[in-house]
Amino acid sequence: MPAHSAVAMGEFDLIKRFFTRPTPRAVLGVGDDCALLQPRPGMLQAISTDMLVSGRHFFADVDPRTLGHKALAVNLSDLAACGATPVAFTLALALPEADPAWLAPFAEGMLALADAHGCELIGGDTTRGPLNICITIFGEVPQGQALLRSGAQPGDAVYVSGTLGDANLALTHLLREWEGTEAATSTAAINLSADAMALARARLEQPTPRVALGTALRGIATSAADISDGLLGDLGHILERSGVGATLDTDRALTLMASHQGGANTEAQQSTVLRHVLSGGDDYELVFTAPTSREAAVQAAAQASQSPVTCIGRIDATPGLRLVDRNGLPVANDFLSFDHFV
Amino acid sequence: MPAHSAVAMGEFDLIKRFFTRPTPRAVLGVGDDCALLQPRPGMLQAISTDMLVSGRHFFADVDPRTLGHKALAVNLSDLAACGATPVAFTLALALPEADPAWLAPFAEGMLALADAHGCELIGGDTTRGPLNICITIFGEVPQGQALLRSGAQPGDAVYVSGTLGDANLALTHLLREWEGTEAATSTAAINLSADAMALARARLEQPTPRVALGTALRGIATSAADISDGLLGDLGHILERSGVGATLDTDRALTLMASHQGGANTEAQQSTVLRHVLSGGDDYELVFTAPTSREAAVQAAAQASQSPVTCIGRIDATPGLRLVDRNGLPVANDFLSFDHFV
Repeated sequence: MPAHSAVAMGEFDLIKRFFTRPTPRAVLGVGDDCALLQPRPGMLQAISTDMLVSGRHFFADVDPRTLGHKALAVNLSDLAACGATPVAFTLALALPEADPAWLAPFAEGMLALADAHGCELIGGDTTRGPLNICITIFGEVPQGQALLRSGAQPGDAVYVSGTLGDANLALTHLLREWEGTEAATSTAAINLSADAMALARARLEQPTPRVALGTALRGIATSAADISDGLLGDLGHILERSGVGATLDTDRALTLMASHQGGANTEAQQSTVLRHVLSGGDDYELVFTAPTSREAAVQAAAQASQSPVTCIGRIDATPGLRLVDRNGLPVANDFLSFDHFV
Repeated sequence: MPAHSAVAMGEFDLIKRFFTRPTPRAVLGVGDDCALLQPRPGMLQAISTDMLVSGRHFFADVDPRTLGHKALAVNLSDLAACGATPVAFTLALALPEADPAWLAPFAEGMLALADAHGCELIGGDTTRGPLNICITIFGEVPQGQALLRSGAQPGDAVYVSGTLGDANLALTHLLREWEGTEAATSTAAINLSADAMALARARLEQPTPRVALGTALRGIATSAADISDGLLGDLGHILERSGVGATLDTDRALTLMASHQGGANTEAQQSTVLRHVLSGGDDYELVFTAPTSREAAVQAAAQASQSPVTCIGRIDATPGLRLVDRNGLPVANDFLSFDHFV
């Protein structure tokens, strides 16, 4: 509850110092009751909001620079999944204390990524409270060209961008360190070199939103989603909204983890890799579908956006999600996706 | 950090159950990576975001229905201050637990107010964490007609809508109850009847955003802000951005508290009332300026929007904020405004 004793303009100074910047694309930026945007004719506005909570989406002692990057990256990833071009964002922050030593690198990490995508910070709110970062992001996409979850068609190929499972592998290792235990888990341990761990950790803490790929896939992909909760869960949203099913090749999936190429020798280790790839989450890659006749266009979009894509399966008319190996033989599917309330 | 054991679709079910509704104004509503809005030609989009934290903006045991109302009301109030018509909003929620007995009335309170303003819930995010409510709201205002903080001119009259100070009076009383003390504070106690306390508490918990007044003031008001942090602080933003000063009549200000009409007999009590009115905050009324030549238009806008307005002073060319009594004699100004980081 507000205290009403003597007051300096601390909050406002704080915001000004770290977060006020030129906003050439906005009619009016930070500092009034509302920001004002001038939408461009013929464009739809894509809007997404994400809330990151300490101890749930990141460790309390995470480097604030990478946290600033990630908080914006997960929102940019939602725009990418719609094929939208980033325009602007708002930032609401609850902070336990107004610490410049934390805020400066946090703002730098966030605004460096914002600048790289031409995405302006146009407004926000700051309050004292348990650390919480809520960003709402705005993009634009030409009418009729947005990538939706609902357009997948039987016969379409299923693609994913980049690599999957590394963020979750890093998280699993960090949690074990954090808990000070190598205790039994449901997954077989994968030994990681320091280099592989650094790679995996970078994927966890500094994901690359696939904005350029998303816009390049306009008119090519029939559906898309970003992979935040795990491939199977996010592909599941596409299947549900499109009223279709899918069959995925687990041998292809096994090749998708960057930090663990070819070292899964035992069946238990393969199962662990598959679990990270299929249900790990926090990847912020795209899963999308396209007609097989558009294979060349998909590869051209991937090349133009410097985003490798891998075909991992096909859309079926029959609902449900089936896993098969390279020979088409069924693989047991007990790879489930992350839910925030379980 | 995410747990990756067996998972049901709890989070998504939860969102669907309480927050998914028809979104006729949006091209695409809840359920995809982004919502899609079609901005109307000739309109600017007004955007504001507010974050409400338990223990800071509301008591942890507050009625969830009134909390749902208030969380949206404070955002609608920002649109009102810009003269914007509400269109849509996103809701990000961190909840300690997914409790339907809390979520149902929270959603009802919020969506009833949303319906009253034709403001659609188009997207959101839900996660587990310390209770935190972050709303981002979207409105529209014809180009060139937005009310800004920067337009006040010397000679303009300064107006406020409705009543001020009651929310802060209620908060002060509730804090005393909560702390189980009538301990010495810097304010003289005001004894409140049960009726007056109920009125003040309704102002704290269910503020009325002045959306209709804001749109009615387009083309009339030269500047506007909503009163969230206290009249002096929010008027201060207008003065700062307009490069002007103001003189306010404290005898007028003394009449603005609805729950305490005419009962401030001692000088100490008057000082307490003034403190609530001038620096209490949480009022969600508008403070605005207009040329004295537009007095009739201001009153017509007030009548059309059923929002009483009171002239409480004038804008001066000299920077700074001066308080005078009805005879024009200076009143000491130690009424300061709430800051979230002090």
